[in-house]
Amino acid sequence: MIRFDVDASDSSTKARSGRLALEHGVVQTPVFMAVGTQASVKTLTPEELIQAGTEMIVCNSYHLYLRPGHERIRTLGGLTRFMDWDRPILTDSGGFQIYSLAALSKVTDEGASFQSHIDGSSHAFTPEGVIGIQEALGSDVAMCLDECPPYPVTAQRAQEALARTTLWARRCREASKDGTTVFGIVQGATYPDLRRRSAAELVELDFPGYAIGGLCLGEPSDLTHELVSVVSEVLPSERPRYLMGAGYPEDIIAAVERGIDMFDCVLPTRNGRSGTAFTSTGRVVIRNARHTDDDSPLDEACDCYTCRSFSRAYLRHLFIADEALGPRLLTLHNVWFFQNLMKQIRVAIGRREFKSWSRSFLDRYREGRSPGVAGT
Amino acid sequence: MIRFDVDASDSSTKARSGRLALEHGVVQTPVFMAVGTQASVKTLTPEELIQAGTEMIVCNSYHLYLRPGHERIRTLGGLTRFMDWDRPILTDSGGFQIYSLAALSKVTDEGASFQSHIDGSSHAFTPEGVIGIQEALGSDVAMCLDECPPYPVTAQRAQEALARTTLWARRCREASKDGTTVFGIVQGATYPDLRRRSAAELVELDFPGYAIGGLCLGEPSDLTHELVSVVSEVLPSERPRYLMGAGYPEDIIAAVERGIDMFDCVLPTRNGRSGTAFTSTGRVVIRNARHTDDDSPLDEACDCYTCRSFSRAYLRHLFIADEALGPRLLTLHNVWFFQNLMKQIRVAIGRREFKSWSRSFLDRYREGRSPGVAGT
Repeated sequence: MIRFDVDASDSSTKARSGRLALEHGVVQTPVFMAVGTQASVKTLTPEELIQAGTEMIVCNSYHLYLRPGHERIRTLGGLTRFMDWDRPILTDSGGFQIYSLAALSKVTDEGASFQSHIDGSSHAFTPEGVIGIQEALGSDVAMCLDECPPYPVTAQRAQEALARTTLWARRCREASKDGTTVFGIVQGATYPDLRRRSAAELVELDFPGYAIGGLCLGEPSDLTHELVSVVSEVLPSERPRYLMGAGYPEDIIAAVERGIDMFDCVLPTRNGRSGTAFTSTGRVVIRNARHTDDDSPLDEACDCYTCRSFSRAYLRHLFIADEALGPRLLTLHNVWFFQNLMKQIRVAIGRREFKSWSRSFLDRYREGRSPGVAGT
Repeated sequence: MIRFDVDASDSSTKARSGRLALEHGVVQTPVFMAVGTQASVKTLTPEELIQAGTEMIVCNSYHLYLRPGHERIRTLGGLTRFMDWDRPILTDSGGFQIYSLAALSKVTDEGASFQSHIDGSSHAFTPEGVIGIQEALGSDVAMCLDECPPYPVTAQRAQEALARTTLWARRCREASKDGTTVFGIVQGATYPDLRRRSAAELVELDFPGYAIGGLCLGEPSDLTHELVSVVSEVLPSERPRYLMGAGYPEDIIAAVERGIDMFDCVLPTRNGRSGTAFTSTGRVVIRNARHTDDDSPLDEACDCYTCRSFSRAYLRHLFIADEALGPRLLTLHNVWFFQNLMKQIRVAIGRREFKSWSRSFLDRYREGRSPGVAGT
């Protein structure tokens, strides 16, 4: 089941805020989904995710199919029960992982065969198969199997991948049971005309929501934003739009402005583990020597557990001493930061102040200036 | 400051329960101190330690002297503020680490010189120096510098180490400022007469508490228990007795029976990280294949967050998939288990039922039998 309601729209941009009702609950949009690839948002508990304001997460079919196995998870009560996350879950189909992670992947119109990155064993995914896997996992939103070419890629290859993606999207749509919510994925690489074509072909299949895949792969961000605009124009405004893999605050804001409702990215968790914190005044690399004696919190403007309890000096010590609590505390802060960012975005849209809010946020974020003197 | 009150004594054994009042709060004894070597109980937050019933922790002077530096911690408000643990902290002097961890350590009557295990730099610890370090850290209980020979060791070497430990204990006592609580450490290896002599020499110096060092190093546990009995007889009953490094539930119970009030061990945290859980029905190795589809909690009798929220199947998946949440959740459970064990011990002593309680606990723990049929 799915129901999407737009509550407020910005007058000068395509930004909108709303509610996405799914099997396991209602999510406020624009939403940032924390990434729990292997049925765990790395280092954090479901309790902490909720405290941080997380309403929905993303898990990965490729990983969970290989380990511990989707049928096992079905028997254990589905993903929500397995990982004790009783809220909406979107599962990626695993297409991206087959091309980026698995060895010796081979793609035909029938499907994709590949070798497991864990033990080299042979497997095959078909559009019908990945829908079945996601139904076993009990996802709120299942994604179509797509073919996602790397960046950069020729127009010829992009066009072939697009055609196959549409072919597979039709088969996914047909294979899904009543009640399963499946999103189509727009491909077309960096070619605006191919992007338009891909979007139009998917819209014809009438999906309840649409994702934009194959972006945020290293292309210049101006190009990302342009392609998001192009695709967004074609997608129906009454359906949710999901930009896969966008994570930098600047990119999220630019995409919201272009009508995107859903986001996911490993950035808050991966950067947290490696010691980079996102703060209201920009990124902080906690291992830097300048934090050695710094008694102040990571972010004066943040009220997460990490910022309420610990100094930069202590957090730096944890990373230098290789203590597992360090990655955990920075991940917690980063997830908090992104959820707080989304909350600010939703409030700003609701107040019809999205443009002025985003200017003020980005001024402070980019230059570490206080809001009062932004722009001076 | 320190004040130790015995509230209840077992009639048939030397077990007693009481309260230890220290600078940062009152601790119920017998107490198990979680180990936070580098100012962090690995993977856990202070909040979680408190929820698990932890009242006191142990940090390590050797590690904190090297990294981030005791003077830095002093400037940042002492250990309690630095790590946001506003409760009692005992610091080990670092003697044990100099012999076990540092390279090229050399010991004379003056002190111990050694090379850092981190970068090979040269350092020297004296009895006066380690008291100064612990005063900078702001410890509730500081430990004397001792010489801790390995197991096994000749009587000759044990006697030399004992003599030096007494010499250093006197200097530590004299070097400590008014208000600093310093415990002496009994040595003497596995020789009952040397253990008696060491204890008697320290008692003459009138410490507010006494530790038994140099045990739990691999000697048979019957011998450990015998030596604890021997030392305990010599130590004054109105002062707290601390058995360093004992962690197996069987050993803790045997030592409580012999009059020990304080414990510390890396066992709950280290075993938690490597995937072994302590439960009321014995140890569980979570990676074992038999847990693959097991929907039951780690320990049916436990009400920790891990046991309330997750199945063995999920916990096993986290370890197999190398997810950081796995070590964290097992560590949390183990710390909870040990705090709950100590609570049961204190209650049993208070009710004058220590012997029957310990029989019932150990029957179940050793054989996985339910309490109702223990002994049948």
